[in-house]
Amino acid sequence: MRIALLGGTGDIGEGLALRWAYHTDHDVVVGSRDPDKARAKADEYETELSSRGRDVKVNGFANEMAADRASIVVLAVPPYHVADTVEAVSDSLAEGDVLVTPAAGIKRDDDGFHYHPPGAGSVTQLVADAAPEGVAVVGAFHNLAAGRLADLDAELGIDTLVVGDDFDSKDMVMRLAEEIPELRALDVGGIANAAEVESLTPLLINVARNNDGMHDLGVQFR
Amino acid sequence: MRIALLGGTGDIGEGLALRWAYHTDHDVVVGSRDPDKARAKADEYETELSSRGRDVKVNGFANEMAADRASIVVLAVPPYHVADTVEAVSDSLAEGDVLVTPAAGIKRDDDGFHYHPPGAGSVTQLVADAAPEGVAVVGAFHNLAAGRLADLDAELGIDTLVVGDDFDSKDMVMRLAEEIPELRALDVGGIANAAEVESLTPLLINVARNNDGMHDLGVQFR
Repeated sequence: MRIALLGGTGDIGEGLALRWAYHTDHDVVVGSRDPDKARAKADEYETELSSRGRDVKVNGFANEMAADRASIVVLAVPPYHVADTVEAVSDSLAEGDVLVTPAAGIKRDDDGFHYHPPGAGSVTQLVADAAPEGVAVVGAFHNLAAGRLADLDAELGIDTLVVGDDFDSKDMVMRLAEEIPELRALDVGGIANAAEVESLTPLLINVARNNDGMHDLGVQFR
Repeated sequence: MRIALLGGTGDIGEGLALRWAYHTDHDVVVGSRDPDKARAKADEYETELSSRGRDVKVNGFANEMAADRASIVVLAVPPYHVADTVEAVSDSLAEGDVLVTPAAGIKRDDDGFHYHPPGAGSVTQLVADAAPEGVAVVGAFHNLAAGRLADLDAELGIDTLVVGDDFDSKDMVMRLAEEIPELRALDVGGIANAAEVESLTPLLINVARNNDGMHDLGVQFR
């Protein structure tokens, strides 16, 4: 399976690219608005993987081309670029492709970080509203510890929460998630349940900010 | 220290009453709108504790009297009774008492459970708005697995998230929480951060409903 990570040059995109390229045989493609940046990052990932004895090809392209080549397209871009990015790649998506959205709307004030959903009710719903006909949308990978995910030596032991209205595409994304060792995928139902999932992202930041020694946090349901 | 559990006859109130009475030397008082119900439940808890070799007195009173006798007053009532209950016990609270609120506003629809805060922005803020002058409000114990908490044989291994604007009272509640073995208290800052904490409650229910074998869930930040 070919997975495109749009905005795959940083944060959660980097972690997912490295983990899938390292632990699975899926073909990982890095996308960026700037194709040179995408290629440079893809080269970096190849070097990192090669240093660990894993010689795989990671390609970097402009977002549109990355989306065109993949059947799973992860929108690993900041929340305020999600709508633009879906629009930009819309013509590159084919029926049956799956759009995966890990973003959460967050605002910051003097007290801390707060959930600040778009008018659609959640970022996942915003993507669902913008997605072309025949392309299923799945919310996943919101609440991962990005730095830990990108460090292949770091242990995970955390959960990712998955929402989607199309059973088969949700199931596929859950299986892709669980191909990453020590990452458990939990089903949280339909996209109507996305807001509570996305709300966990600012909460994780607030917990990290207020407790010594806690950073780059994830959660485990137990 | 004397702790009153208003609505201590069921759910989270039962678990906190049993755990504090079993594991600590704090004096636990059960409150209910119906004093007979409070006394009957208090007797039940005494019997349960006695069967485990712990002979302690647990008293049951009407909420007003329970609040009058305690310096820590936990509002373990359903969210729609929180405002009424604060009003009912208001004259029973003295300066320096601490009101603890574990409730989260939740609504249910066909898709699942959703966070439905009161107009104040969160239940914790609603309590803070209603609390008498000089009584600090702390949000805590929202996201515990009530059934597991009430089963003294069950392992916890979960976190409780604590918010409050008064440092000393928040610190005191965090210490009370951590006197329960295998329960870790995490500071989430001020009451302005309560909504994201309360949002975790409907999320826990949605996770439990959609995944086989998961029930009575808590979370661990890691």
